[in-house]
Amino acid sequence: MEAKNKIARLLNNLREKNPLVHHITNYVTVNDCANITLAIGGAPVMADDINEVRDMVTLASALVINIGTLNSRTVESMLVAGQRANELGIPVILDPVGAGATPYRTDIARIVMENVKLAVIRGNLSEIKTLYGVNTLTKGVDSSEDISAKSDALIEAKNLAKSFARKLNTVIAITGAVDIITDGERMFTVENGHKIMSKITGTGCMCTSLIGSFLGVSEDYALAALAGIAAMGISGEIAYESLSSLEGTGTLKCRIIDTIYNLNEDTIMKRGRINEE
Amino acid sequence: MEAKNKIARLLNNLREKNPLVHHITNYVTVNDCANITLAIGGAPVMADDINEVRDMVTLASALVINIGTLNSRTVESMLVAGQRANELGIPVILDPVGAGATPYRTDIARIVMENVKLAVIRGNLSEIKTLYGVNTLTKGVDSSEDISAKSDALIEAKNLAKSFARKLNTVIAITGAVDIITDGERMFTVENGHKIMSKITGTGCMCTSLIGSFLGVSEDYALAALAGIAAMGISGEIAYESLSSLEGTGTLKCRIIDTIYNLNEDTIMKRGRINEE
Amino acid sequence: MEAKNKIARLLNNLREKNPLVHHITNYVTVNDCANITLAIGGAPVMADDINEVRDMVTLASALVINIGTLNSRTVESMLVAGQRANELGIPVILDPVGAGATPYRTDIARIVMENVKLAVIRGNLSEIKTLYGVNTLTKGVDSSEDISAKSDALIEAKNLAKSFARKLNTVIAITGAVDIITDGERMFTVENGHKIMSKITGTGCMCTSLIGSFLGVSEDYALAALAGIAAMGISGEIAYESLSSLEGTGTLKCRIIDTIYNLNEDTIMKRGRINEE
Repeated sequence: MEAKNKIARLLNNLREKNPLVHHITNYVTVNDCANITLAIGGAPVMADDINEVRDMVTLASALVINIGTLNSRTVESMLVAGQRANELGIPVILDPVGAGATPYRTDIARIVMENVKLAVIRGNLSEIKTLYGVNTLTKGVDSSEDISAKSDALIEAKNLAKSFARKLNTVIAITGAVDIITDGERMFTVENGHKIMSKITGTGCMCTSLIGSFLGVSEDYALAALAGIAAMGISGEIAYESLSSLEGTGTLKCRIIDTIYNLNEDTIMKRGRINEE
Repeated sequence: MEAKNKIARLLNNLREKNPLVHHITNYVTVNDCANITLAIGGAPVMADDINEVRDMVTLASALVINIGTLNSRTVESMLVAGQRANELGIPVILDPVGAGATPYRTDIARIVMENVKLAVIRGNLSEIKTLYGVNTLTKGVDSSEDISAKSDALIEAKNLAKSFARKLNTVIAITGAVDIITDGERMFTVENGHKIMSKITGTGCMCTSLIGSFLGVSEDYALAALAGIAAMGISGEIAYESLSSLEGTGTLKCRIIDTIYNLNEDTIMKRGRINEE
Repeated sequence: MEAKNKIARLLNNLREKNPLVHHITNYVTVNDCANITLAIGGAPVMADDINEVRDMVTLASALVINIGTLNSRTVESMLVAGQRANELGIPVILDPVGAGATPYRTDIARIVMENVKLAVIRGNLSEIKTLYGVNTLTKGVDSSEDISAKSDALIEAKNLAKSFARKLNTVIAITGAVDIITDGERMFTVENGHKIMSKITGTGCMCTSLIGSFLGVSEDYALAALAGIAAMGISGEIAYESLSSLEGTGTLKCRIIDTIYNLNEDTIMKRGRINEE
């Protein structure tokens, strides 16, 4: 079965099962993450206190760890919840927001990576390079590098992702102009999306929440990552195309959530620009 | 005078007096709570630091305590602010978000309930059952149960609400497909709203903020709760009806706030589906 | 060159250079601040942990300190980041949200003001009066006073702003029905905007973020403040004019961000109501 068909089937599962997706995340994009999780069919719960994260994650089908506005209080909760999720076989996704920008951020991302078995790591190229130990530059929380189709940088990034995925036995997802998803064996690329998406805060975080939602109904973690990333890209480009000349990034954010809410098999089949090597 | 007329009159009062509504609330839906408070005519202030909550609540006409993303730092502030509000006769509303999901959340909701005299408690059926001490299941922060019109569950929920309201001498408001509001004597039900509202995060929190705003101008706490719940339900259904086939939950949230902003006596009289027993 | 031409040129610079704007801000309006910073052409980063703020601000072109939901943890970060910014010559803007409402808030705003060299302070009249030491009343986080065109209050406010700016050797910006911007020598007023903007939370915070973005590309701090304030006012009135009779403050917020995203030289030249004395 083609990847797009599998994604469509997974979306139907997700909408039927409404998996609880526990987020320990940042206070910048948390509302958008909750709303996009609901829009795709998941049930988000945001809880970060050390006194309840063990109990909360026990109820969940997936755990999202996002270090966007990390602080010492929530970092401890991330580790406790992540380890409990591991004990219970609940998949965990890490979004290492801004890794590479400051030593603290890099350290925390690495500590999470070393102490929690991760199903997926999703980041931009700078963040993933940083975690892998390659020198790079993160501009605040945005990547300083990007990958275009058919470039040498793309080949290099694929190799890095594959090698990282094998080393950690996890799925590595690098999002950018071209998205790369690999479990170390299979290699997928997605060419959906539009560059205007980088002009909204949280498109990366929302993408991670979508993957978290798909993880809640899929044992194939690479497929879950692919589904989340394709859903985000497809919705982003539909939302962009819907904008009138007077509309801009304020409206765009609403439309992305609208489009995720209305996403269906037809749209995925028609729009998806997915390659599997 | 009919309930709907009283609500319309209260709305006019609210828009004239712009009461300050102090919120100690979660970081997921806080922006929406502030905006809906402004849209209905209140003046929101969000402040949770122990060093200022006593002073802030002193300026306020109502206090909203919402445990959506509770942590030990803010719990202390909730108690201090709540007790200060009690001393000054300022009405306090509790939103026990997710009570029942984790022991910590349940404990904190109970501690607030036992240490602060509450004007209103608003929650979904699972949350209210949990606080009342009945076994139930809370799925994350969403109710695992719901009430439909004319069902046995509705009769049972009404009895529970009435008994709880009498025991605590407070107003109990249970929101769901049918909303129940009672002060232990009067019993109101509201049948406005649409199920799509549960696909946006924070419709419950926003409803609590609306009630908080009405509490700022009403000594009849049951009426304030009824007004907030009816306003939310009416706006939700108008917002839903306004959606085109390409729009979804992203646009819906904006439209709910739009509709609250434009809400007037005519709409309440025409749309309100309120019963008093 | 006329002020409006200078603003237009600065906007072009901003869109070319995408300066990193480090925010230590509140959790109520943080998402809107990030999105409006992106919309005007800046690159926002929100980071408040004491372990990383020194490193993060080092990468930035401007620092925004906003005390909207201050707490002891973030206050320390504000001081550390602010002092590091001073060492590096990175401009710092303070938004003293709610100064005057509680003693704690007033104290913290003063402590920041005394320990960090500020490029700009932007607040409403109550907040600025409080910081200057004049008796006033802050209603929650909103001004209890406002200034209309050609009033005595306007003359008084201008004098206060000028005197404060000279005393502190900073730019003072008071926003209201008429906005006042002065570095103690030059005095600008802006008469753009619409009163409906006060019915959305965060228009003040977003204005501060716009100024922060312009500070990232301008050594003339008064011009940066003027540019941010004019951009906000112009966008607010365009957004307001675009509303249909069924739309309200929910849609308005999206449209303000849309309009900032689409803002260009023509709109500034045509719409700007700026006076320089």
